[in-house]
Amino acid sequence: MLDRGGFGRDGAAMIPVADPPERIRLADAQDLLAGFKARFQLPAGVIYLDGNSLGALPKATPERLRRTLEEEWGGDLIASWNKHDWIGAPARVGAKIARLIGAKPSEVVVADSTSVNLFKLLVAAMGVQGGRRVILTEPDNFPTDGYIAEGVAGLLNGCALRTAPAAELEAAIDDDTAVVLLTQVHYKTGRRWDMERVNDVARRRGALVIWDLSHSTGAIPVDLGGSGAELAVGCGYKYLNGGPGAPSYLYVAERLQSRLASPLSGWMGHAAPFAFAPNYQPAPGVARFQCGTPPILSLLALEAAVDLMLEADMAAVAAKAEALSDLLIAEMASACAAHGFALITPRRFADRGAHVAFAHPHAYEICQALIAEGVVGDFRAPDALRLGPAPLYTSFCDVWRAVQTLEAVMQRRLWDRPDYRTRARVT
Amino acid sequence: MLDRGGFGRDGAAMIPVADPPERIRLADAQDLLAGFKARFQLPAGVIYLDGNSLGALPKATPERLRRTLEEEWGGDLIASWNKHDWIGAPARVGAKIARLIGAKPSEVVVADSTSVNLFKLLVAAMGVQGGRRVILTEPDNFPTDGYIAEGVAGLLNGCALRTAPAAELEAAIDDDTAVVLLTQVHYKTGRRWDMERVNDVARRRGALVIWDLSHSTGAIPVDLGGSGAELAVGCGYKYLNGGPGAPSYLYVAERLQSRLASPLSGWMGHAAPFAFAPNYQPAPGVARFQCGTPPILSLLALEAAVDLMLEADMAAVAAKAEALSDLLIAEMASACAAHGFALITPRRFADRGAHVAFAHPHAYEICQALIAEGVVGDFRAPDALRLGPAPLYTSFCDVWRAVQTLEAVMQRRLWDRPDYRTRARVT
Repeated sequence: MLDRGGFGRDGAAMIPVADPPERIRLADAQDLLAGFKARFQLPAGVIYLDGNSLGALPKATPERLRRTLEEEWGGDLIASWNKHDWIGAPARVGAKIARLIGAKPSEVVVADSTSVNLFKLLVAAMGVQGGRRVILTEPDNFPTDGYIAEGVAGLLNGCALRTAPAAELEAAIDDDTAVVLLTQVHYKTGRRWDMERVNDVARRRGALVIWDLSHSTGAIPVDLGGSGAELAVGCGYKYLNGGPGAPSYLYVAERLQSRLASPLSGWMGHAAPFAFAPNYQPAPGVARFQCGTPPILSLLALEAAVDLMLEADMAAVAAKAEALSDLLIAEMASACAAHGFALITPRRFADRGAHVAFAHPHAYEICQALIAEGVVGDFRAPDALRLGPAPLYTSFCDVWRAVQTLEAVMQRRLWDRPDYRTRARVT
Repeated sequence: MLDRGGFGRDGAAMIPVADPPERIRLADAQDLLAGFKARFQLPAGVIYLDGNSLGALPKATPERLRRTLEEEWGGDLIASWNKHDWIGAPARVGAKIARLIGAKPSEVVVADSTSVNLFKLLVAAMGVQGGRRVILTEPDNFPTDGYIAEGVAGLLNGCALRTAPAAELEAAIDDDTAVVLLTQVHYKTGRRWDMERVNDVARRRGALVIWDLSHSTGAIPVDLGGSGAELAVGCGYKYLNGGPGAPSYLYVAERLQSRLASPLSGWMGHAAPFAFAPNYQPAPGVARFQCGTPPILSLLALEAAVDLMLEADMAAVAAKAEALSDLLIAEMASACAAHGFALITPRRFADRGAHVAFAHPHAYEICQALIAEGVVGDFRAPDALRLGPAPLYTSFCDVWRAVQTLEAVMQRRLWDRPDYRTRARVT
């Protein structure tokens, strides 16, 4: 019996799952990224397929935080801002993330949350779009993106928020469109926008595009520079493994930086933050999008995680994300046929991210039963079971075992048993 | 010779300082808060008088972070949001801070940075002030407060930022004044506003007041409810010891909460954040001023520090702040007379905070020499040496020794010696 940490039913054995077949074990044996799994602290016996919400803990992170606390803060106190370059962390970590998303080091900075950064870029973009007053987005974008856009529309004179379904979105970009706001990989369905194509259409029609990369970075190839992207934000958790509520990053293409003004004109975005000048003068580059003093503990945990990801080849990461999710879709085919799951994620990797979602009328209960059996995915209303393998710490055997467990849950109708349903605890 | 951690000149002995006289040692012996000093990790031989910028490290914090990382995130992964109530942390820590500032638990929430929170409250307050379009502040308020107000004025139609010197500020509150924005204790001079009086004047003239409590909380008595305060923000570092860039808190009096709308309408401020509803519906109480996912690591470090402060009696904390700063002013009298320092902080504690500032033409160099000698204060342009004793970890002997060291620095002209000046490293 496996040690399941906080998972599983109290005192109950988990469903026994057979050993993976040779072809699956071979895929792991040939995986160049296989060594990264040991760099994460994961509970024994748990297959974690929810890293697209909150990533796993890099083993280096606790020691990095201990050092920051005891040696830096505890030993050097306020001198740490210079001595340990805390003050440079937003630009330094931003420059590291830039390497993961095809940006220049001077185009990315870490600051605030994804929602706050979206607000900054939306207001800044509206400020240079003259008479164009429409923010265009998808109706089922990740909620906070829509909420923030709604807030901006309410705040700025004559600004309006419009939505168009994905299939009609390109056609809806018109002469009134100031900004198109899209999440590159949809949080639920996993559907992926063709970034280059949307950038092209928008540029020809005079609109700016803001990309939310939260479900992209660390999972699919992202090439902001190569695709002509102008503005982007992304969270520091999910595939980046920066920790719960890790600070967010934002990207502003170099050619736009001097034209855009952040509405959140805090001192960290000032050209000379320590001059204590009476008036606000924005910093020359992307640094102007910093605002207040950054939360150093959370920021340095993010840096430890980004440093780990930078050890991997990003093309290999994307290739493994494709292979893992392809395997998941293939192995789920029989479960789909026998137990009523419907794949709601596009099949081709070019059209999707690394996570895969299946609709099922009992998706919520099934998800809870899976968690009790040590396979952690998550439920997205109204009926989606979302499973997100992460290239750095999910093995091919993990994916295979997860599907075997799901089949057992369905065959034994565990999801309908009260002792499973009451164990549910996951967000 | 003392172990000075990262301080002092390499290989050089520090200035010997005599033992404090009986009256000083007696003050420590009678100090009911003396036991708190051992709850902080401070470098041996260092007298830290800059906690009004970045507080000291509570010894409980590293263990709290280790547990959050290894047991919560590492052990329970995403389930920690519920299982360890990460999701409740902004309200929970807010309710704890409420006890330090005379607010109800339901009136305070922790979120974002002080600058971002100021932006939210300024825009929200402007939104309920109808035709009143002026934000009134001091010309020499802490820079980021002024910068944020400048940004808000630029963003909102017809909104203007005006400043009035402290002596003329009350008279400047007129029928155009929408919001008065003041830092209760001035970051440099330490001058304290009479909160109740300003609230009264403003209310009678129809203006709202936003108080920045960053240099107040944990140092002077703050009674938001009793003084009729309606809006406030404050940082989590300084006297709260939450760590570098700790999240900030904001206060909205209960009677105003349902009328004010945050411009940063992120999902954490939604009435039902996990319902993923298509439209934004603000949470009923102060929770509507949350925005994105909170940085849990930094937030739980803040909680550990607030828990420690809650062990102390706040009246005793304020009384000790008064006694320490009174002693500092009294002991500095001879240095002022002999070495050209001028006290720029009001003498009476009712008129100031816990930190004390002295003007001197060589304040910068003197500050650096003091740091080399293990007494950490800081310099504020153009000519202020700022010394901030912290009631929880500064002893009366510390204050006495700090002044002795300063006198020695002046007598020996150490501040003018190149080997001292090149050691300078502090922000």
